[in-house]
Amino acid sequence: VSSPPLPLSASLYLTVHYLNKLLSISASVFCRVSGVGAFSLWDVAYCFNMRKESRLIRWIGRIVVVTALLLLGFIIGWFAKPTTNTTNQIASSKYLREFLDEMQSDQIREHLRKFTRLPHLAGTEQNLRYAEQIRKEWLEFGLDSVEMVPYDVLLSYPNKSQPNYISIVDQLGSEVFNTSLAEPVPAGYEDVSNIVPPYSAFSAKGQPEGDLVYVNYGRTEDFFQLEREMGINVTGKIVIVRYGKIFRGNKVKNAMLAGAKGIIMFSDPADYWAAGVQPYPDGWNLPGGGVQRGNVLNLNGAGDPLTPGYPAKEYTYRFSLEDAVGLPKIPVHPIGFHDAIHLLKNMGGLIPPNNWKGALNVSYKIGPGFTDDFKSQKVRMNIHTNNQLTRIYNVIGRIRGALEPDRYVILGGHRDAWVFGGIDPMSGAAVVHETVRSAGRLLSKGWRPRRTLIFASWDAEEFGLQGSTEWAEDNAKLLQERAVAYINADSAIEGMYTLRVDCTPSLHTLVYDITKQIASPEEGEEGVSLYDSWHKRDNWTNDRNAPRINKLGSGSDFEAYFIRLGIAAGRARYTKNKITERYSSYPVYHSVYETFEIVEKFYDPSFKRLRAVAQVRGGLIFRLADSLLLPLDVNQYADSLRKYAQSIAQLAQRHPEEMKMYAVSFDSLFSAVENFTIAARDFHERLQILNREDPLQVRVMNDQLMYLERAFIDPLGLPGRPFYRHVIFAPSSHNKYAGESFPGIYDALFDIENSADPEKAWEEVKRQISIAAFTVHSAAMTLTPPA
Amino acid sequence: VSSPPLPLSASLYLTVHYLNKLLSISASVFCRVSGVGAFSLWDVAYCFNMRKESRLIRWIGRIVVVTALLLLGFIIGWFAKPTTNTTNQIASSKYLREFLDEMQSDQIREHLRKFTRLPHLAGTEQNLRYAEQIRKEWLEFGLDSVEMVPYDVLLSYPNKSQPNYISIVDQLGSEVFNTSLAEPVPAGYEDVSNIVPPYSAFSAKGQPEGDLVYVNYGRTEDFFQLEREMGINVTGKIVIVRYGKIFRGNKVKNAMLAGAKGIIMFSDPADYWAAGVQPYPDGWNLPGGGVQRGNVLNLNGAGDPLTPGYPAKEYTYRFSLEDAVGLPKIPVHPIGFHDAIHLLKNMGGLIPPNNWKGALNVSYKIGPGFTDDFKSQKVRMNIHTNNQLTRIYNVIGRIRGALEPDRYVILGGHRDAWVFGGIDPMSGAAVVHETVRSAGRLLSKGWRPRRTLIFASWDAEEFGLQGSTEWAEDNAKLLQERAVAYINADSAIEGMYTLRVDCTPSLHTLVYDITKQIASPEEGEEGVSLYDSWHKRDNWTNDRNAPRINKLGSGSDFEAYFIRLGIAAGRARYTKNKITERYSSYPVYHSVYETFEIVEKFYDPSFKRLRAVAQVRGGLIFRLADSLLLPLDVNQYADSLRKYAQSIAQLAQRHPEEMKMYAVSFDSLFSAVENFTIAARDFHERLQILNREDPLQVRVMNDQLMYLERAFIDPLGLPGRPFYRHVIFAPSSHNKYAGESFPGIYDALFDIENSADPEKAWEEVKRQISIAAFTVHSAAMTLTPPA
Repeated sequence: VSSPPLPLSASLYLTVHYLNKLLSISASVFCRVSGVGAFSLWDVAYCFNMRKESRLIRWIGRIVVVTALLLLGFIIGWFAKPTTNTTNQIASSKYLREFLDEMQSDQIREHLRKFTRLPHLAGTEQNLRYAEQIRKEWLEFGLDSVEMVPYDVLLSYPNKSQPNYISIVDQLGSEVFNTSLAEPVPAGYEDVSNIVPPYSAFSAKGQPEGDLVYVNYGRTEDFFQLEREMGINVTGKIVIVRYGKIFRGNKVKNAMLAGAKGIIMFSDPADYWAAGVQPYPDGWNLPGGGVQRGNVLNLNGAGDPLTPGYPAKEYTYRFSLEDAVGLPKIPVHPIGFHDAIHLLKNMGGLIPPNNWKGALNVSYKIGPGFTDDFKSQKVRMNIHTNNQLTRIYNVIGRIRGALEPDRYVILGGHRDAWVFGGIDPMSGAAVVHETVRSAGRLLSKGWRPRRTLIFASWDAEEFGLQGSTEWAEDNAKLLQERAVAYINADSAIEGMYTLRVDCTPSLHTLVYDITKQIASPEEGEEGVSLYDSWHKRDNWTNDRNAPRINKLGSGSDFEAYFIRLGIAAGRARYTKNKITERYSSYPVYHSVYETFEIVEKFYDPSFKRLRAVAQVRGGLIFRLADSLLLPLDVNQYADSLRKYAQSIAQLAQRHPEEMKMYAVSFDSLFSAVENFTIAARDFHERLQILNREDPLQVRVMNDQLMYLERAFIDPLGLPGRPFYRHVIFAPSSHNKYAGESFPGIYDALFDIENSADPEKAWEEVKRQISIAAFTVHSAAMTLTPPA
Repeated sequence: VSSPPLPLSASLYLTVHYLNKLLSISASVFCRVSGVGAFSLWDVAYCFNMRKESRLIRWIGRIVVVTALLLLGFIIGWFAKPTTNTTNQIASSKYLREFLDEMQSDQIREHLRKFTRLPHLAGTEQNLRYAEQIRKEWLEFGLDSVEMVPYDVLLSYPNKSQPNYISIVDQLGSEVFNTSLAEPVPAGYEDVSNIVPPYSAFSAKGQPEGDLVYVNYGRTEDFFQLEREMGINVTGKIVIVRYGKIFRGNKVKNAMLAGAKGIIMFSDPADYWAAGVQPYPDGWNLPGGGVQRGNVLNLNGAGDPLTPGYPAKEYTYRFSLEDAVGLPKIPVHPIGFHDAIHLLKNMGGLIPPNNWKGALNVSYKIGPGFTDDFKSQKVRMNIHTNNQLTRIYNVIGRIRGALEPDRYVILGGHRDAWVFGGIDPMSGAAVVHETVRSAGRLLSKGWRPRRTLIFASWDAEEFGLQGSTEWAEDNAKLLQERAVAYINADSAIEGMYTLRVDCTPSLHTLVYDITKQIASPEEGEEGVSLYDSWHKRDNWTNDRNAPRINKLGSGSDFEAYFIRLGIAAGRARYTKNKITERYSSYPVYHSVYETFEIVEKFYDPSFKRLRAVAQVRGGLIFRLADSLLLPLDVNQYADSLRKYAQSIAQLAQRHPEEMKMYAVSFDSLFSAVENFTIAARDFHERLQILNREDPLQVRVMNDQLMYLERAFIDPLGLPGRPFYRHVIFAPSSHNKYAGESFPGIYDALFDIENSADPEKAWEEVKRQISIAAFTVHSAAMTLTPPA
């Protein structure tokens, strides 16, 4: 127990001052007996002078003893005054253990079963019921408050009386083949109503008819290849692409840019079929009638398409549908591979390049004139999906922070599902539920975190991260000033192999720390830590000797928090072996076959994997909320920045002549990274010698840690993407799921060799380098001593 | 002296724990003598049991006394442990008095004389020399650090070999009259070189020739009147307007929008001549040869035109001149009224409306065809001004905060002057200089403010607030998180009547408090406070019974801090009687006649007025930096918001039918203001019962106070003005000098009766009301308890 440094003179002054006071009182008591009023040391001396000398000496002796004892007591009292920080941190570690141990596999199983019985699409009655149930249970678990937060946003549903489908039509316009209107319902769910048929949310309405062109995955490079190498123009055609590799919204955008009048997406077994695995219900592969639902927006972080930048409250001004953000202008529809075979086998015509052939081994057609039997057949899309203003509900629970209530650590994940949500999102929601239960137990034992914990059950994630984004917009001012970190809790499992973590660099070290305190859920790995299990299975050989951690992309609810607001963020889930298992996502993704049973039978029969994920997510928020010093590692950010800077500079170096011609240099960026590295190292050193007993000094450095991520935000946003404001990380412009580092520079360099105006294009590269250099330099400044 | 609340049980536990420890030691000493080792109360008891009973009793008595004394000492020690906040605040008040008293009129006079001897235009050698001198003296005064911070920005200078002037040309193209190339230099300054001739900085180059049209003050409404009522089109003409009423950059913008090919501005005696006052040097009126210099940019807060949004560092990417922000595309030139008479008297033609007639009683010409003697004469502008990338220097001084070094209070004002800067800006700079000297004296007496004080001497304010804006851009991340307030220090005097304050609502109360502690500088008002003197002279009858305080507009260096970053801001200066003195600004504004002598002889011979201004500005930053609780008044903000909301709603109510037709309602805004009012009142009440001894609790509420202004910032900015981001206040779109409240709504409503698409226009009004309501509601949320 040590005391805050206090000037010695002040201590001495106070000691003497109080002793003097005390002695004068004591003396006055003594002298009172002999009728002398004495009120200070001098008076005492005077008083004693009146007595005989022998008694004087004895009294002096007594006074010395009394003084010494009082002084001793005083000193003890002074130093005994509690300096709580150290003690609290020991207690915090003990509580962390209890918190992790309290989380139970059986509980998670029950939570998952409970919340996957019925379909609960965003905006439906059932999803509101689950929200109310979660609210009720979180209150029972012991949260300080739980509220329902509604917004009125634009959603999209199939027209119940006019189903969506795709036809092959003959010369007379007759539909000679129609795709199926629904997926075969899995056993045990036959009586369930309200299963939404497969559709592409926010598709434009329409019945375009035309020739079909196959464009592989519909990636930017696929369209480039089609146009540049094969000389095929898709204007006025309908394109068909396989699902996978990139976010489906990007495929739609590419098709629109290429001039297509409709786009069909299908799940190719090459991408959604694991070798040696049976289709559901005998295994976890996607049946031929299974279809991936999903929205096809290009929101770029806007949230509700009608209220970009502002929360969709009752009074909020809404754009007209024509001015809405990110809606596709063409019909879009998803099909399974049984249906896809029919469409593709009727295409005939050219043979596509080898790397375009999926398991269905398609060729493609580009219009009449090809000498094949089917040249006169066309495809017709019948799409009647409606956009609809709909009320959605977030559930927000809180545990008030004991010492810093104005510092927020958020654990959020969505609740809305395409159908049952067995994996997406309820495996994640069950984990959050268990985390809340465990936190509630701790509260009842007297624990209360230093900072405020916020738990969120988001709505309408599947419709473009709307629930989380609207809440972020609604609370932007508070979050900007107060949010320490956001941990995302979407699907907790997508494979059976090991842990997968995507997070901001400053969280790497905490993730490693926490996973060392958690047991591996794998059979035969008793006594092995999750960290060691993970490390063994996914070693990150090109960096520190540690398990792989990825950059954050998007496609889940952390987006607004991380990329718009600059709040340190991370996500963790159980995943497949990405080297041996090459299929996209997991096979039944967004199909009706995402049931409770697929998790219970195949993905995690013991529910130990979900428990491990719960412990990782829970451990992260616990440490972030309860540590005296924020567990954010500035040095790791420096390392990552250096790596990203080198990598983007290398990309530019593919054009050495242009770099020279237009005087493009990365020196300013490297110099800023160097500044940052030094500032981070110095900051880290100052952190080690910080007086942890001084609450203000601790707060000052914690604020520097908290605001570091914020420093990477450019209020002007990335070019054309005002709500993507993080200069270091953004979703790729070509695939929303993937994270791009230094996205401004990356996009400026993209396909620059084909730029119509190279000088202008390279000027933009220079501008983006300058912005990146400034931002990194600025962030470095936030780590230097504040004055 | 009270202690932070500590659970009683903990105190008791610790008392007993330490007493037990101590007694065991004492007892062990006693028992050691008799050979018994005793280490706890129980051992002591055992030890004493071995002795005879009589001695036991005596010992027990002694132990009781010893224990009592130790306990007493302990308790004293416990409570004596300093709880510094209260004591510090008493010391702070004492130091404030010393700080104010230390500021001396004679010192201010010397500072002013020293820094006005030579012209020191931004970007010149002399202005760098003054910067270095200020740096040196601030260090001598005792600041912890003073640095020069350079930027490379776009400035604009006349071409030294090709002077700018305006001619009247005859049919043959001969110049029959030329305007003067310079102002007559005032006595005593004949040998001074480097006096820049009058010019409009950033004017386009060119020699347009054409008919001259007079457009009064060149305001939006003047051009409307010209076009709509008089049916006169100025396309291809040269316009001439009087200075005054609005910022000259707005005049130029209006002329460009109207299609003029050049614009001439002159100082009309109606606007720059005080009745009964002699022209300089016999009085303080503008001589006929005097001309107002000034920039004619429309930056809308961008700072350096080539690097909008980012600091103009060496590595920063710069736009080409074509893409630069806010540069006029037409030649612009200023003239004095002696020259103006020549141009105007040769115009002939129509008689302008009465309200357009200045002292020169002009008519105007709109092209050939008018039956007057001069119809064949045209005007030619000869403008050769160059834009030039130039290094400028801010001087930044700091006093590190003792307890919260990461909280910044800034006092900033510019140093660059058009010529000598006798009033603008050196009357302000001298005041800052004296403030720094006084703060340095306090430091040497042991004072150190709770928060960090930053003093700034900005460069290139006259060229569009560039020095202050670039520094704000450079430090945006730090300022956003850490700046408590910005106090501006441009010209400290523009009249001889009373105080003038423009500030954010939350500073009103502090301004009143401080001015009550300062003496009136007016003769015959000995013993009267500045507050009372000000109140008597400028009573704000339509609000609280207090002196008038105005909204902040722009035209000085607070702009980026207040309107872009949302930092509470204010300015104070001595001013004229705005009721009886109707001239614009002050007559010699931006002319060569702004000398030291004009202040010494006319404006403030005793320098007491400047001292009072120094005390106001200094008092504000002192209290903001050193008060335990930030002296910001949230209730006053609520009052102001209500007033502004009512006023903008009234403006809309001028169109009752359209309001109905397009369903425009202000209800959401009024409801948000009501929320804010309640939140502010509750906050204020919680502030009264705050435990001021708990540093974290104090910090939490101070942060709420600090971030309140930030909550009014919309990161998306106002329409078309991305760097004006304050939803409550912005410079008027029609006059940069004036502040507009709810500017988004105001601009949407502006001239709406003449909108080409009324539905769209009213939709925009609704959108802006929605944004305002959200922002006010958001700000209210920041005042509620943080969790």
